[in-house]
Amino acid sequence: MNIILASTSTLFGGSYLEYLREELIDLYSGIDELVFIPFARPGGISHDGYTEKARMFFETLGIKVKGVHEFEDMKQAVNDAQAFFTGGGNTFLLVKTLHEEGLMTLLRENVQQGKPYLGCSAGSNIGGQNMKTTNDMPIVYPPSFECMGLVPFNLNPHYLDPDPGLKHNGETRETRIREFLTQNDLKVIGLREGNWIRKKGDRIRVEGSELTRIFEPGKEPYEIGPGSEL
Amino acid sequence: MNIILASTSTLFGGSYLEYLREELIDLYSGIDELVFIPFARPGGISHDGYTEKARMFFETLGIKVKGVHEFEDMKQAVNDAQAFFTGGGNTFLLVKTLHEEGLMTLLRENVQQGKPYLGCSAGSNIGGQNMKTTNDMPIVYPPSFECMGLVPFNLNPHYLDPDPGLKHNGETRETRIREFLTQNDLKVIGLREGNWIRKKGDRIRVEGSELTRIFEPGKEPYEIGPGSEL
Repeated sequence: MNIILASTSTLFGGSYLEYLREELIDLYSGIDELVFIPFARPGGISHDGYTEKARMFFETLGIKVKGVHEFEDMKQAVNDAQAFFTGGGNTFLLVKTLHEEGLMTLLRENVQQGKPYLGCSAGSNIGGQNMKTTNDMPIVYPPSFECMGLVPFNLNPHYLDPDPGLKHNGETRETRIREFLTQNDLKVIGLREGNWIRKKGDRIRVEGSELTRIFEPGKEPYEIGPGSEL
Repeated sequence: MNIILASTSTLFGGSYLEYLREELIDLYSGIDELVFIPFARPGGISHDGYTEKARMFFETLGIKVKGVHEFEDMKQAVNDAQAFFTGGGNTFLLVKTLHEEGLMTLLRENVQQGKPYLGCSAGSNIGGQNMKTTNDMPIVYPPSFECMGLVPFNLNPHYLDPDPGLKHNGETRETRIREFLTQNDLKVIGLREGNWIRKKGDRIRVEGSELTRIFEPGKEPYEIGPGSEL
């Protein structure tokens, strides 16, 4: 496999995908067209508008972008694609749409064949085993929480440390993930903004500018540095 | 109906349910025993431990507390109860358990008969039309997101204003609720900590120390003060 699962598309103050530029040149090496999956975006921007945003960035890498929604037969489009990119937004909406269109399994099969895959945020969540560690609001009811399982764990994108100054009784991100572990026997990668997971062949590493926080059943959470194997 | 749906059980720096004491004396007037629903709590505290926490508070009001999980026949327990209290925790776990045990509809019917109901946080979410505006992590997959619908809208407990100093690209609460409105034609009450919804008969008001933020399809969000009708 040849995939990147990134915490976010955009760093604070940065421009779209810019911090991943060098990685994306490596990921999409030899590719001149990719299929973009815009289904996570619930509002403010249409599927066409969202695809256009991706298209403008990938133009600078010499890669053409087609939105999967532009094809009459989306399954055929996935099978014919050279590579994929799934943008962020709402994971519930993304997972619901992929299951309902019969694309979740098909996408997994195509990525498992070695086609490059980039996910950002919600698009990274679907690379995990299931979407049970998303931060998103359950604005729609998906027929299943199961995802592609490209990696043998779950991700928590946009991982955020507790704010000790906040006078609020909502749960912290760490509390939420610990709650997940009371109900599920599965490792969770707390992926801070600036970090991504890189799987190339069978090797899985975490990369980026920040430490990464790992949550495992029966263990205290711990941190690993960029370049660590997962 | 005679219900309170509170944003939180505990104010920052306060003790359990203390800020609601006067309201609870009114809600549970004439009641000497209530049934507590502890199913939202995913870890760190058992159903017995959670029930004990509620018991200690309600002792000071002269009200006995029984955990619904203590009964062999939970449906009978709900039908026999004088009043209810559902504690906070994870809304997915609460909703899954109530649906699987056949208690969601039964609880609604009993509350509609006039039995007092208090919900805090997750326990308030289930008073809304559905759980699609919870902040919780989807750590388990419920058979449905539908809730009791005691009020003709949804709630967002622990409503939190955006933090302008946060250098992070995760969605704000307002963004998430606006995303909900792109997919659902339903009003959402952004209930800040310190506030609660009081339904007595057919009148529904918002009470507490803070303004309340209202989100409606096709409108800009707006704020209403304590005592406003909903």
